[in-house]
Amino acid sequence: MRTSQFFLSTLKEAPNEAELPSHKLMLRAGLIKKLGSGLYTWMPLGLRVLRKVEAIVREEMNKAGALELTMPAIQPAELWQESGRWAVFGPQMLKMKDRHDRDFCFGPTHEEVITDIARTEIKSYKQLPLNFYQVQTKFRDEIRPRFGVIRAREFVMKDAYSFDADVAGMAESYRKMHQAYTQVFTRLGLQFRAVKADSGAIGGDASQEFHVLAESGEDALAYCPDSDFAANVEAAEAMAPAAPRAAASEAMRDVDTPKQTTCEAVAELLGIPLQRTVKLIALMANEHLHILLLRGDHSLNEVKVGKLDGLADFRFASEEEIRAFFNCPPGFLGPVGIDRSKVRLIADRTVAAMSDFVVGANKPKFHTAGVNWGRDLPEADLVADIRNVVAGDPSPDGRGVLEICRGIEVGHIFQLGTKYSTALGCNYLDSEGQLKPMEMGCYGIGVSRIVGAAIEQSYDDKGIRFSTAMAPFAVVIVPVGYQRSEAVKAAADALYAELAGRGVEVLMDDRNERPGVMFADMELIGIPHRITIGDKSLADGKVEYVSRQAGTTELVAQADVIGFLLGKLSK
Amino acid sequence: MRTSQFFLSTLKEAPNEAELPSHKLMLRAGLIKKLGSGLYTWMPLGLRVLRKVEAIVREEMNKAGALELTMPAIQPAELWQESGRWAVFGPQMLKMKDRHDRDFCFGPTHEEVITDIARTEIKSYKQLPLNFYQVQTKFRDEIRPRFGVIRAREFVMKDAYSFDADVAGMAESYRKMHQAYTQVFTRLGLQFRAVKADSGAIGGDASQEFHVLAESGEDALAYCPDSDFAANVEAAEAMAPAAPRAAASEAMRDVDTPKQTTCEAVAELLGIPLQRTVKLIALMANEHLHILLLRGDHSLNEVKVGKLDGLADFRFASEEEIRAFFNCPPGFLGPVGIDRSKVRLIADRTVAAMSDFVVGANKPKFHTAGVNWGRDLPEADLVADIRNVVAGDPSPDGRGVLEICRGIEVGHIFQLGTKYSTALGCNYLDSEGQLKPMEMGCYGIGVSRIVGAAIEQSYDDKGIRFSTAMAPFAVVIVPVGYQRSEAVKAAADALYAELAGRGVEVLMDDRNERPGVMFADMELIGIPHRITIGDKSLADGKVEYVSRQAGTTELVAQADVIGFLLGKLSK
Repeated sequence: MRTSQFFLSTLKEAPNEAELPSHKLMLRAGLIKKLGSGLYTWMPLGLRVLRKVEAIVREEMNKAGALELTMPAIQPAELWQESGRWAVFGPQMLKMKDRHDRDFCFGPTHEEVITDIARTEIKSYKQLPLNFYQVQTKFRDEIRPRFGVIRAREFVMKDAYSFDADVAGMAESYRKMHQAYTQVFTRLGLQFRAVKADSGAIGGDASQEFHVLAESGEDALAYCPDSDFAANVEAAEAMAPAAPRAAASEAMRDVDTPKQTTCEAVAELLGIPLQRTVKLIALMANEHLHILLLRGDHSLNEVKVGKLDGLADFRFASEEEIRAFFNCPPGFLGPVGIDRSKVRLIADRTVAAMSDFVVGANKPKFHTAGVNWGRDLPEADLVADIRNVVAGDPSPDGRGVLEICRGIEVGHIFQLGTKYSTALGCNYLDSEGQLKPMEMGCYGIGVSRIVGAAIEQSYDDKGIRFSTAMAPFAVVIVPVGYQRSEAVKAAADALYAELAGRGVEVLMDDRNERPGVMFADMELIGIPHRITIGDKSLADGKVEYVSRQAGTTELVAQADVIGFLLGKLSK
Repeated sequence: MRTSQFFLSTLKEAPNEAELPSHKLMLRAGLIKKLGSGLYTWMPLGLRVLRKVEAIVREEMNKAGALELTMPAIQPAELWQESGRWAVFGPQMLKMKDRHDRDFCFGPTHEEVITDIARTEIKSYKQLPLNFYQVQTKFRDEIRPRFGVIRAREFVMKDAYSFDADVAGMAESYRKMHQAYTQVFTRLGLQFRAVKADSGAIGGDASQEFHVLAESGEDALAYCPDSDFAANVEAAEAMAPAAPRAAASEAMRDVDTPKQTTCEAVAELLGIPLQRTVKLIALMANEHLHILLLRGDHSLNEVKVGKLDGLADFRFASEEEIRAFFNCPPGFLGPVGIDRSKVRLIADRTVAAMSDFVVGANKPKFHTAGVNWGRDLPEADLVADIRNVVAGDPSPDGRGVLEICRGIEVGHIFQLGTKYSTALGCNYLDSEGQLKPMEMGCYGIGVSRIVGAAIEQSYDDKGIRFSTAMAPFAVVIVPVGYQRSEAVKAAADALYAELAGRGVEVLMDDRNERPGVMFADMELIGIPHRITIGDKSLADGKVEYVSRQAGTTELVAQADVIGFLLGKLSK
């Protein structure tokens, strides 16, 4: 492609609204253009990148034996009513009525539709296993679309759905998808991590997220550098401290905390580590008060709480409910001296192992220090893991301590089990003629999000640094004096024709621009390999090669340049 | 691909609702599956066909210099309000509100969005011409979706939009698209015709439709076998008869037509050709009555009427309005003896050249015969072309007579001029620094509709007959006794590997089915080239080749089969 025949549209500055580097760079490089909140046009340059990602996703899905189909984007409400999700999906689902006043949605996902296809098309165990996938435009009406294509409302997703006769088959389908995803992200040249995810709300037994590692990622990931362990922070188990609870060494006493209503403020006032404080969180469930105790520096994990016996439908207690029991305003609450017959006291594993800790005194402007289990208050009714892990926590596999990094979720694989097949009557006849529900899995890749995530992982002050696998063009030829020098034009045209003839995606920047402008544009849009052709080096029979990733420059003999480039591209 | 790894799902009978052969066959062959009214899933087999069409469309668009992008499917109402089309597009447009109660639509077309892109991205004549296209899912809420993918609600469309500095540039962009479309439909192996279309309502100067010829087509096309002339029947000009009006030869007299309220009934009663009768149509426009006269066998062309001076906003007169003027019920109306000062009499060109004709008598149960212009009533106030052409009419290019055929519209190209660029302020600076609106064109191909239209043109009682260009697989190998005969398995596997290695899209039917079942399935799904491998012919070193298109069978030496097939595929 010649620049003069193409459409390049680069900007010096990104619009103010863009927060993340990738969002700014995608706008500045002219990969995308905003139509409305969370709605982007993929401009010709950006679409080339998106298509690269799509192609690699398709190749790996096909290799794994999945079959591509395309389901409608617009789905009738009836199927969602049958699965029970029409009412519960929430405002993320874009709903509409057709001219006959019937309810439809712009499909945010396709479990219902594919299960409807499977229940009518698959009759016998002989047809199983099957895995269908599509690469399709989805819409989720995010309350706050942002980060460009990373959290857009309209986006491209690859969604796959597997159908198996039994749980072992489902596990095998899941394993194949795990392998295919690993191949996809590896081929795209991304640093990524597959992490254990929480699958509680979706149902099913196993679930993993694939994250592209990036400081700006919305998700915190816990991993163990000494082992394979990796999980979304919310899904990682916080183990009990290895050491047993120390004996009490302080007397319990009230301390003056006139304005200190947070653990941080109390610790600062008392000149003690935050790790010595304990905070109290009051929940209501089944019309009963539950009191959670967390170490001052830890954060509550609501998913874990929701899985505790009797707490599936918990909510936070209101200030009135808190005052009614404690007779004290929030900020000074504590577990000492309360009527334990009327509440359930749940201590985090870490808190259960603490001694000499500081809590609220249940009277305004006071906290109590030197508190000890057994001596000052009865042991907790339940000790459980109710917090998010932090760096330095022991790894759940016992093989080191956890570190925390951030990631952008680009893939998610689920073992669904029979949740949808049971709801929609998606059954097959087994080899003994018994009707059984199919075991399902579902597997998503955020195709358009990957482009943003990849840039988030690889850019510098000049612009984007695409891997060869994702770049809109693999090579750019920048002739200096294309309109002026016959020799430059001849050399550039010959190299262009030779590369194009070999199937290399090459861009010839034949604009009548200053070299600096052309270099800056090509660095901004992230072309990984650049050949500069000018009279000066040509006189020595050479051209200049610049690697965008490595930032290195070298002179290459004109006669060797094809082989040299093909070598670079094959890496 | 092996059938055992693929998903084939053929049916003996099509659902009752399917009317057209292509719709029945697509369902029976398992190319598509219905989700709801006008909503279809493209199953793996059908998607392969759709992808073939998409690929050829893309190749030809790229060759013509158009640049692919992808605009959002969901569009904000504001742009449509700016162009004035939000209110007028009608119920075909699927509208919705997002979670913030803002108005959006599922884009039925993208003139507004692309013009918004052009007005911000294109500043100078130096950037022109440009042609952007996309291949995208569209939604039009048809009042009566039918014919499967031919008139679906959700469908795949290729839409392109050209931007030029002047009218000559627009005409050149249009010409390139005409050429690209001709290439697309030729490569797909379709019998098609480009016809002049009416472009009145859309604006602009020129417009052509591309039709796949098929008896079941919804559109009637007029063409001249002796020349290049071809037009949608509604857009073809009906010329005045070559011969001048004959002199009056009959006396005017009333005839008894007690129950005859139509020209057909009157002609039958009187024993005269329908071509001797004239019918009257009453219209209201500008609060004024207009009376149209058409020959009994001709049909009114409302588009032509709407273009007449003063009739842009016409409507049909109500029965009350008709009775008020004629003092006679419809069915017996005529132009003789009416108060011509209060109406405008418009005669079709053919009627203006008639003599001795039969019309209503303006009294119940009577018609008047032997009516002649001049003698019995004053000449018409206006003589104009207000009817659809019929077979036998003179060709507007004066080079023969017209014939009528039927077609399925699969493409449409428009010269839009400055309709949208003016409405949306899409201007550029010309070489003299003057701000000018861009000259636009738009170009659509009904990508998914093409699959139905192609089948409508090529099927038999066994099923679909795909061209090699569109077939889901080019070649199928049917081994007879794959599980039983070592020799058959070895020969089939070797041929499959050899073809696949050469990039041929080959299906190996390795199912454990009777040959008749496999043959019937492969004929139904329309694979153009079949190789049958069985012990009997193998003993003679031969395999059997069957052409689905030609219906011919021949034995081919095993050693020659690759060359033989490659020869067939290159045709």
